[in-house]
Amino acid sequence: MSNSIGEKFKITSFGSSHGKALGAVVDGCPANLELSAEDIQKELDKRKPGTSKVTTARKEADEVQILSGIFEGKTDGTPITGVIFNTNQHSKDYSMFENTPRPSHGDYGWMMKYGNYDYNGGGRGSGRVTIGQVIGGAIAKKLLKTQGIEIISHVTQIGDVKAQNNDLKLIKENIEKNPIRCGDLNAAKEMEELILAKKQEGDSIGGIVETIATGVPAGLGEPVFGKLDGDLARALMNIGAVKGVEIGLGFDVAAHTGSEINDEYEINDNKITTKTNNSGGIIGGMSNGMPIISKIAVKPTPSISKCQNSVNLEKMENEKIEIKGRHDPCICPRVTVVAEATTAIVLADHMIRSGFIHPSNLKY
Amino acid sequence: MSNSIGEKFKITSFGSSHGKALGAVVDGCPANLELSAEDIQKELDKRKPGTSKVTTARKEADEVQILSGIFEGKTDGTPITGVIFNTNQHSKDYSMFENTPRPSHGDYGWMMKYGNYDYNGGGRGSGRVTIGQVIGGAIAKKLLKTQGIEIISHVTQIGDVKAQNNDLKLIKENIEKNPIRCGDLNAAKEMEELILAKKQEGDSIGGIVETIATGVPAGLGEPVFGKLDGDLARALMNIGAVKGVEIGLGFDVAAHTGSEINDEYEINDNKITTKTNNSGGIIGGMSNGMPIISKIAVKPTPSISKCQNSVNLEKMENEKIEIKGRHDPCICPRVTVVAEATTAIVLADHMIRSGFIHPSNLKY
Amino acid sequence: MSNSIGEKFKITSFGSSHGKALGAVVDGCPANLELSAEDIQKELDKRKPGTSKVTTARKEADEVQILSGIFEGKTDGTPITGVIFNTNQHSKDYSMFENTPRPSHGDYGWMMKYGNYDYNGGGRGSGRVTIGQVIGGAIAKKLLKTQGIEIISHVTQIGDVKAQNNDLKLIKENIEKNPIRCGDLNAAKEMEELILAKKQEGDSIGGIVETIATGVPAGLGEPVFGKLDGDLARALMNIGAVKGVEIGLGFDVAAHTGSEINDEYEINDNKITTKTNNSGGIIGGMSNGMPIISKIAVKPTPSISKCQNSVNLEKMENEKIEIKGRHDPCICPRVTVVAEATTAIVLADHMIRSGFIHPSNLKY
Amino acid sequence: MSNSIGEKFKITSFGSSHGKALGAVVDGCPANLELSAEDIQKELDKRKPGTSKVTTARKEADEVQILSGIFEGKTDGTPITGVIFNTNQHSKDYSMFENTPRPSHGDYGWMMKYGNYDYNGGGRGSGRVTIGQVIGGAIAKKLLKTQGIEIISHVTQIGDVKAQNNDLKLIKENIEKNPIRCGDLNAAKEMEELILAKKQEGDSIGGIVETIATGVPAGLGEPVFGKLDGDLARALMNIGAVKGVEIGLGFDVAAHTGSEINDEYEINDNKITTKTNNSGGIIGGMSNGMPIISKIAVKPTPSISKCQNSVNLEKMENEKIEIKGRHDPCICPRVTVVAEATTAIVLADHMIRSGFIHPSNLKY
Repeated sequence: MSNSIGEKFKITSFGSSHGKALGAVVDGCPANLELSAEDIQKELDKRKPGTSKVTTARKEADEVQILSGIFEGKTDGTPITGVIFNTNQHSKDYSMFENTPRPSHGDYGWMMKYGNYDYNGGGRGSGRVTIGQVIGGAIAKKLLKTQGIEIISHVTQIGDVKAQNNDLKLIKENIEKNPIRCGDLNAAKEMEELILAKKQEGDSIGGIVETIATGVPAGLGEPVFGKLDGDLARALMNIGAVKGVEIGLGFDVAAHTGSEINDEYEINDNKITTKTNNSGGIIGGMSNGMPIISKIAVKPTPSISKCQNSVNLEKMENEKIEIKGRHDPCICPRVTVVAEATTAIVLADHMIRSGFIHPSNLKY
Repeated sequence: MSNSIGEKFKITSFGSSHGKALGAVVDGCPANLELSAEDIQKELDKRKPGTSKVTTARKEADEVQILSGIFEGKTDGTPITGVIFNTNQHSKDYSMFENTPRPSHGDYGWMMKYGNYDYNGGGRGSGRVTIGQVIGGAIAKKLLKTQGIEIISHVTQIGDVKAQNNDLKLIKENIEKNPIRCGDLNAAKEMEELILAKKQEGDSIGGIVETIATGVPAGLGEPVFGKLDGDLARALMNIGAVKGVEIGLGFDVAAHTGSEINDEYEINDNKITTKTNNSGGIIGGMSNGMPIISKIAVKPTPSISKCQNSVNLEKMENEKIEIKGRHDPCICPRVTVVAEATTAIVLADHMIRSGFIHPSNLKY
Repeated sequence: MSNSIGEKFKITSFGSSHGKALGAVVDGCPANLELSAEDIQKELDKRKPGTSKVTTARKEADEVQILSGIFEGKTDGTPITGVIFNTNQHSKDYSMFENTPRPSHGDYGWMMKYGNYDYNGGGRGSGRVTIGQVIGGAIAKKLLKTQGIEIISHVTQIGDVKAQNNDLKLIKENIEKNPIRCGDLNAAKEMEELILAKKQEGDSIGGIVETIATGVPAGLGEPVFGKLDGDLARALMNIGAVKGVEIGLGFDVAAHTGSEINDEYEINDNKITTKTNNSGGIIGGMSNGMPIISKIAVKPTPSISKCQNSVNLEKMENEKIEIKGRHDPCICPRVTVVAEATTAIVLADHMIRSGFIHPSNLKY
Repeated sequence: MSNSIGEKFKITSFGSSHGKALGAVVDGCPANLELSAEDIQKELDKRKPGTSKVTTARKEADEVQILSGIFEGKTDGTPITGVIFNTNQHSKDYSMFENTPRPSHGDYGWMMKYGNYDYNGGGRGSGRVTIGQVIGGAIAKKLLKTQGIEIISHVTQIGDVKAQNNDLKLIKENIEKNPIRCGDLNAAKEMEELILAKKQEGDSIGGIVETIATGVPAGLGEPVFGKLDGDLARALMNIGAVKGVEIGLGFDVAAHTGSEINDEYEINDNKITTKTNNSGGIIGGMSNGMPIISKIAVKPTPSISKCQNSVNLEKMENEKIEIKGRHDPCICPRVTVVAEATTAIVLADHMIRSGFIHPSNLKY
């Protein structure tokens, strides 16, 4: 199994939904970055369930402890280990899934491939496992901030409701004002209603999350097989429910001509910028100094209480399944936090790989 | 720079558009696979330019030589090196780009990051560099065929023209009958006209390429950070002009509910299959035995002859640019070959990683 | 910093001597291996200090907790995290080393490279950090045992005292009967006296540790840059105080001819073996089915109480240093446990890499 | 198979003794390093056989061609491919080895593991394959020279004849004056006689090669699992006939006390140095600014013409073997070139990894 991501700034994630603990080891963070458990807790709190009607009713304290890597309030270059001990787990809810895979849930793969599958709460296939990314991302964000890089993720679509707002400043303000983490308050209201309606029906709904990184210098990314957009695409696609990744215009490029969407260069204040940013800040696999913009397609939570067709793997016969338990009717709001963290990890890694951040010591 | 892809089946690509040669070293192909230069040449010929009105007029022999890795007609487990010596290069066409980056072309990144940039024919930023993937992909396809896996890529959209045909057998037949490599002959006709119209205008046009892999067993892919869709997304996004990657329904999941698109299980002939394949053959990062389906968004070639705004990097002043030279008005037809090769490399790698193919010897 | 070892069976180690905790995440262990905390504790207890007069007087409970990776008594293919919380740390002993590096101790490198160095107990440069390897090695040993592979390390030399016994069965019995973990009880007695004499003088003494792995099949190791002896050499050299690694005859090959030391083949019971094992079980980077034998040179503990010359890095002036604190006068007995663990990790990794153990599931 | 070495400065080697070609792709060399084929040829000529009585009588032109990675006389950051086409191969000499492994030669492993083994000239198990390292090392040496780092390897022992000279300046002068590449001209004479005597007997002889790197800054190497000595040990052990690696005092540490061999610090010209260099320039896995000194044990060439016992793998019966063909009676002189190259590759890699050399562009 592959539970590490990153080449120079590397996260190794561990733990499962109902096991003893979850966490991550972050290797390769340079020494002398000020870092506290609060820096990580702040991000974890954003993904925490039980905070609004649109997420699962599970309540998890999710208090992170740092076990290593900090000396006198600063990183010391050694691996940083963040861990959360599980507390509020109801394993009895899950025994019914031992032999009956949930349609479009990863459990079928786990059963087939590993055999000994901890089906409780989805085990290591649970969305709860993204705690690892969020721990790593919190550190990455702190590191990137020292270089003037900021990252924000927001929900742009739920079902057929689309956000209209494109103003980054307004988006930042608005996402903290609504449980959807949407940048457009009117759309957020509609999205919330749609999600609650689907929840009521025992169903779930998909959506789209956009991530914007500003302050990224030109020159991140390595041509051919280490492209920045390639690494972003992998990292974002590795988030559980994601079925598509776009950079800049994404699939809209198909219906356009070069003359319509090429990003022309111009000089502003002796700095080279582009008139438009249809490329989403990445051309030829390298950042060009413009904001880096990605979109991900998030499928509806597969765990729904509506009756579905499945099979019993032991008896090898068809079987109906109704999934009880506490599931998010729409995971997009919480995915924003993971997308932000994931983007931060990839950018921190490339900032070190490309020589913008010293590999061992921020004081250099 | 990162010019390697794959963990167990690993391609290291080298060479540039107008340099001495291009090629790839393929490390990790098990011994005892029958392989000849013809197996590779066949794939290279499909991406060769100059074969129809919709591609560039450049004529390249592109004859591959195998320098290592074959003994008595079979792989011997050692690295396989395929190389093509460049012959038909017109370097005089490119000197104008030495200091003036082409809008939305990777050359700006190369100039900024590496300084000493071989701008001739786009250097190593050229689409010609995908010869490396095609060499690796040809070997991967031969290897996968021994396991009953086949891969086909086809154009599903150019501009606003969309192919309608979803029948895999028909797609396979049709793509060889039209220069667009589209599975729908009527759409292909329209696409061709659209491309020629754009060429006439000195412009270019984008499109979408779909790839379908059949015969893939359940259980490829490693949860969390080695997901099969994650690795596919990275590999596909690493193809030059790609701005988006979808698996299965892709971005369409956003507007759907779980009950609408969950892939329910059923038993057929004592085999577990799903009634639908909205997941595109991958759930939870692992293949589920259904066909693996991806789509990529291919942007219009940035090199167009229409006048565009750019900057002169040496003088640091704005400058107009008109790009001459022989460029494809639409690269989608040729991208199909690269998408096919890329998908083959990722699948071959995971077949070995997951224990379906022995890492050193096909005879085991 | 690089805190991971292994390609398929991968250990990521974390923690420091006086920090909150130490441990390791073990990724890539196949599912369905029976594993308990006791399996790991057993190995940790062997390296635990405070158990005899020849080791440091520090007493550490060193009780391991498994935080993840086990389901119903067996591995489930997910990362296994073992952690030990530090309890008996005397940080006041170490403040004198903040600016004064200890001769031949790694602290100088840490100070120079990372700046923010946790000097307490040697921080992450401490021998205590080998707890990570021992956790990983314990799991590796359990995994290898399912394939009939056993590994034993023993002390063959301390100072000028050399063990004479070459009988593997006898070595195994004897090492548990003396605190030196030497296979020759007479030599062990002399070694113990020598160590205590050096301790009395405020000095330390070096030695040699041999590791023997039996039951290893022919065919582990990948030619050219993934050789089994190459990977063993790196892993063993990565143990703190090691200054040399030998495979088989090692440096003795220099004074011999091919006809004297070539290992001739013969057939025994329809199995190919060699008459001698001067190669130490590895030829051309691959195991040949004979026992794998390595030796490592372990330098005397650099931390001695005798007065030594050093420098004050802050004042940039010469300074004398006398190292108090509780240090092992000879670390060889404890290094045997680490060498055993390290060898197990490398062999487990190659058993998976070479297809002898299935990468995800022991049931295959 | 694993044919790549290095993390940031990465060599991928290919080709076999009697195949079409041999070579290497060097990925990760920063742009703007002046480099020509002559720089590489110079190093290859040093390892070329047929130049004296103590090496094989084979004559190989071994002319290197650079296929990629150079633009206008300088590296451009893209992969550098060096290739040598084989010309003087006598495959008829080797057919007798098809089913009969040579004692202590790697061919047994190749036959067992890969099945389809090109036994001609040892195939990819041949010493000729070190051409890959030498190509990579030549580039690494040129890169390191820009940072003031120089590397020299010399023979210190053949059989029981040992070189006495420790003066680096004299060693450099002397090694070019004798075919043994020994730094002590008197010893060189004796060594030559010993080798010729063994050749006469149809036998071969082992030896020791020392490598010294000067000008290496303090701070190379990453603690725990990326130690500089760990990476050196692996790389050096990966050279065909090497059975042991020492750093600094090596195995001599066993018989010493800490007070005898600890390297005490002192300040010279406001620079921190050590009074002695028993550590061989590496402590705690990191360089300390002193010369880096390693020794490797080189076994006698296994291919000897004296009659030996072996087995016929096809018939599974014992069989005698007398190895004809042109083999070096002692490979130590040629190994010096490979050791130098290998050390250069490891140091170049760590210079980039540790931030001393910019990863993409020397102009930074």
